[in-house]
Amino acid sequence: MKITVWNENRHEKKNPRVKEVYPNGIHGAIAAFLEKGGLDVTTATLDDPNQGLTDDVLSKTDVLVWWGHIAHEEVRDDIVDKIQARVLDGMGLIVLHSGHFSKIFKTLMGTSCDLKWREAGENERLWVVDPAHPITEGLGEYIDLEKEEMYGEHFDIPAPDELVFVSWFAGGEVFRSGCTYKRGRGKIFYFRPGHETYPTYYNEDVQKVLVNAVHWAEPVKGPKPIYGNANPLEQI
Amino acid sequence: MKITVWNENRHEKKNPRVKEVYPNGIHGAIAAFLEKGGLDVTTATLDDPNQGLTDDVLSKTDVLVWWGHIAHEEVRDDIVDKIQARVLDGMGLIVLHSGHFSKIFKTLMGTSCDLKWREAGENERLWVVDPAHPITEGLGEYIDLEKEEMYGEHFDIPAPDELVFVSWFAGGEVFRSGCTYKRGRGKIFYFRPGHETYPTYYNEDVQKVLVNAVHWAEPVKGPKPIYGNANPLEQI
Amino acid sequence: MKITVWNENRHEKKNPRVKEVYPNGIHGAIAAFLEKGGLDVTTATLDDPNQGLTDDVLSKTDVLVWWGHIAHEEVRDDIVDKIQARVLDGMGLIVLHSGHFSKIFKTLMGTSCDLKWREAGENERLWVVDPAHPITEGLGEYIDLEKEEMYGEHFDIPAPDELVFVSWFAGGEVFRSGCTYKRGRGKIFYFRPGHETYPTYYNEDVQKVLVNAVHWAEPVKGPKPIYGNANPLEQI
Amino acid sequence: MKITVWNENRHEKKNPRVKEVYPNGIHGAIAAFLEKGGLDVTTATLDDPNQGLTDDVLSKTDVLVWWGHIAHEEVRDDIVDKIQARVLDGMGLIVLHSGHFSKIFKTLMGTSCDLKWREAGENERLWVVDPAHPITEGLGEYIDLEKEEMYGEHFDIPAPDELVFVSWFAGGEVFRSGCTYKRGRGKIFYFRPGHETYPTYYNEDVQKVLVNAVHWAEPVKGPKPIYGNANPLEQI
Repeated sequence: MKITVWNENRHEKKNPRVKEVYPNGIHGAIAAFLEKGGLDVTTATLDDPNQGLTDDVLSKTDVLVWWGHIAHEEVRDDIVDKIQARVLDGMGLIVLHSGHFSKIFKTLMGTSCDLKWREAGENERLWVVDPAHPITEGLGEYIDLEKEEMYGEHFDIPAPDELVFVSWFAGGEVFRSGCTYKRGRGKIFYFRPGHETYPTYYNEDVQKVLVNAVHWAEPVKGPKPIYGNANPLEQI
Repeated sequence: MKITVWNENRHEKKNPRVKEVYPNGIHGAIAAFLEKGGLDVTTATLDDPNQGLTDDVLSKTDVLVWWGHIAHEEVRDDIVDKIQARVLDGMGLIVLHSGHFSKIFKTLMGTSCDLKWREAGENERLWVVDPAHPITEGLGEYIDLEKEEMYGEHFDIPAPDELVFVSWFAGGEVFRSGCTYKRGRGKIFYFRPGHETYPTYYNEDVQKVLVNAVHWAEPVKGPKPIYGNANPLEQI
Repeated sequence: MKITVWNENRHEKKNPRVKEVYPNGIHGAIAAFLEKGGLDVTTATLDDPNQGLTDDVLSKTDVLVWWGHIAHEEVRDDIVDKIQARVLDGMGLIVLHSGHFSKIFKTLMGTSCDLKWREAGENERLWVVDPAHPITEGLGEYIDLEKEEMYGEHFDIPAPDELVFVSWFAGGEVFRSGCTYKRGRGKIFYFRPGHETYPTYYNEDVQKVLVNAVHWAEPVKGPKPIYGNANPLEQI
Repeated sequence: MKITVWNENRHEKKNPRVKEVYPNGIHGAIAAFLEKGGLDVTTATLDDPNQGLTDDVLSKTDVLVWWGHIAHEEVRDDIVDKIQARVLDGMGLIVLHSGHFSKIFKTLMGTSCDLKWREAGENERLWVVDPAHPITEGLGEYIDLEKEEMYGEHFDIPAPDELVFVSWFAGGEVFRSGCTYKRGRGKIFYFRPGHETYPTYYNEDVQKVLVNAVHWAEPVKGPKPIYGNANPLEQI
């Protein structure tokens, strides 16, 4: 299984605080713990040639992890179309935090993916509401993050196929923080935390969730549907 | 409640057989039985000014019924965006038959919406699998259509929020024929039958389904979510 | 449509504080605002003959509202069986607060329906996560209850067909507070708040939710399924 | 992972035709291909001491496969309670064919689990409607069974968490043939085919489905929820 961690990698270049928290970029931090979990990982960023996502890279990627925020609009539409096609064909997709507003996530959801937000460094507690889900392997009843950005409901997404986490925020809001979807032959997991100025991706529980999610999103070698005009299987 | 029945209305102009079956257009046939059901109905077609969907029409429409087939690509992208925005804001949307490939349906689903098909005038039987659903009011256990085009699985849609009908086809296929979705504040119902050369929209059970569906899709005066930066409700 | 509000009505007899808050019983308070909402309401309590639920009462009830807590075990199994049969046959069921542990709710869910709880008179805020749902008609973005008992996740229920509300509690927990299910031809709504020592059922938003829920749960005159041995519809 | 295949094993004793098709019992046939798939399998039958399901057996079973038909009522209620408790605690459960009417399945579903049926040796075709599901690994677009008993809609089950297969029957019916559920920490898969007089469990696709299903249903080492009275995590 081949994992590609894509990051727009812009905050890291502009904001010394982010550079300090993630000296190898958010993608570097994520790749590091996925590799530690025994996975085969490559990274790609917006400023790489072809935005890091050539046809070759996409066709070889089994699970794509996505972090973006301030440069969603710069991602090329033709690349978004190719990512969508790969998801429908089976590639797993893990969308992180501010990736809720990425072109690819909005395209796959069909909704605005809008939400409430607040950057106040407040406490977030992600409660497991589906303890039968493989993404929760190795976790306790909740994940406690001392400081995070707040995302609050209403989160304008389709009702998730499975709701795995619900967040509590100190400021009074809740959020559907871990949501799974299937689109075509591909699996999608949205996971809320991961603001660029907090060390969220060093949290061991967050790391467990993402290692689990990548395994869960592994492509299934199920039937490849045949579309279009079809001969009858029975005499009509 | 105001209903707009939109039809691309091209088969009716080109194909005498269709003109014969639907002398007032498919939109005319649908509008007629919805009005008989006590609803306030207007029709709109692709060749009307602004493709029949001015901002004024859209803003006043509570439920939009959509039939299209050979001219999906002619529907203007800016109008599709406006329809999507209206659905997210609460407008109901009923997508019929070949509308599975319409821009608006594909946009709201996030998938290819592809399927198998065959035009062989074969028997279709739509079984009710959710008899608690208001869309099934007044029906028997199944709807029998003597001749219809076949649509077969795999149907590349997100798993429906509710699966109401499953079709059996004489040629050996099955299909998820009645599917509900919520997107934002709006409700969507996809209903499979309705090929242009068969008198499907004169079938009384099909008419019941569509009258029921329009009522089910009526906008809810629920909360209008507020998105964006939010002050805390509690002291942090 | 005929509504029956069933209450075990024991706290009211034993606890002066409850008697003070609900001088006509919790059932009386609920019946009052449902009637004000134009509904035809009867009440029934555990100490009535046949526990208030004769065959005649059940057969005439379109939607049953259920409040119970300390006397779940006293409800007769044969009556629970009859309620289940009526739900499967189309009767709506609204289960309130501590009714999560009622025999009828556990029977219809197939799970333990267990949860965390705490009686500390803390603030609960129920966020609407499905603003397209008719149960949210007339509400704002959230319902604020100054003092309530806390129920926390994990709530051991099947994933709801629709998740309408998620609660935030001051003490740090979250809860899936408004859940819909269909069982057979019947609709079920579980609504969390309503501890006996707090004036929750006088809250106007709570009243709106329950009036909406009763309308939503109204039986559908859909097909009555025929089970058992069946002749083929086609020549085999 | 330890698998227990439970079979009531009564048809095999009474009906020479069944004995002929399944000389080692249905449980023997299922155990054989699961073992071939590399799994650690034990069998148990109704006439074994303690109906084959001692506390020790249940506590060591990771996934329980269930086949029953004419002796559902003989299964002891206390054993059903223990199976339910084990499912809620994480044990996987695969319910086969006529097991739809088993006590354990009805208990976990909360519905009648009734359906239409016909024993006419007709053709069944199980279409994959969720090609992203791991249970479909290695399959083509459909599974073709030359002769099977018919089960037809309406199938009185809760809407499945995931619908994987839909069956087409030669006699004109359809059926939701592969359904997943989560209950507590456990996963459940219902799979329709497997009538005792047909060699269904020798079909390679059916075998693939069941091997896949057992892997899918493997218990997750997720959080073990703590229920009951809870101290606040925040100062109230």
